[in-house]
Parts: sequence; structure tokens; C-alpha cells
Amino acid sequence: MDKGKVKLLFGARLRELRKIRGYSQEDFAHQVGLDRSYMGGVERGERNISLENICLIADALQVPPSTLFEGWTES
Amino acid sequence: MDKGKVKLLFGARLRELRKIRGYSQEDFAHQVGLDRSYMGGVERGERNISLENICLIADALQVPPSTLFEGWTES
Repeated sequence: MDKGKVKLLFGARLRELRKIRGYSQEDFAHQVGLDRSYMGGVERGERNISLENICLIADALQVPPSTLFEGWTES
Repeated sequence: MDKGKVKLLFGARLRELRKIRGYSQEDFAHQVGLDRSYMGGVERGERNISLENICLIADALQVPPSTLFEGWTES
């Protein structure tokens, strides 16, 4: 799978899950404990996020990390 | 989930999937296109691997990336 696409698919899935839970980007970044502009970059597919941060996000969404890799759709 | 634990769980799962497929660590690193010592560090839970490299590994294992986050067991 193309490297750029992976980041876009991850970011789109994260945005989807965040919105389902009714979080603003700012509130969610605060919840995760990461910088808002960093989280925006992840959602836009600009960041090559690390395993530890993936798992922090999953914890904040109260889902297993695998959920962030399911239902990947291009948007 | 504790940060160190996440890396250990990911590494243990990767090692499990690699062995199921009968790859040596060296052959698998070559297949993925990453350095053998880096891959060893990932398996030992010492590396905070990135999204792009997670997906390279999933491709080499011919599984969706979510598979690397399933069946996490401590060993």
C-alpha cells in the first residue's frame, strides 16, 4: 500500500470516529493529550504517527487500536 | 494503556505472525525492506514504530494492518 495513502486512510478513519463521538478537534486533542495542530495534521494524512500515539488515540476513543485500521475508506 | 506495554504487545504479535509464516528475522526484514536490527528492536518492544512501517510490515505479512493489533498477548 502506498505510503501517502496509508496516512490519508488513517486520518480519515480517525476523523470519522472522532466525529461519531461528537468531539471537536480541539476537545479531542485535549482528551488525548496531544497538540491540536499535530492532531489536525494526522487527520489530514500529513503525519506519520507512531504506535504509542495511535494507542493514546484509541484509548481516548475507548476502542481497541485495531478499530482505527478497520473500515478504511477514501474520502 | 501503558506506553511501554504497547510496544511489547505489538512486538510479540509481530514475532508470532512472522514465525507462523516461517520467516527468519533476517529474511523477514529483507522482505519488508527494513533493517534487521531495527526489526529486532520492534519485536523486543524497544521501538516506537511508525504508521508507515506498520503498514509495510502488514503488506509483507499479507494481512490487513488491523491484524497486527489483534490477539495481543503478553509473553
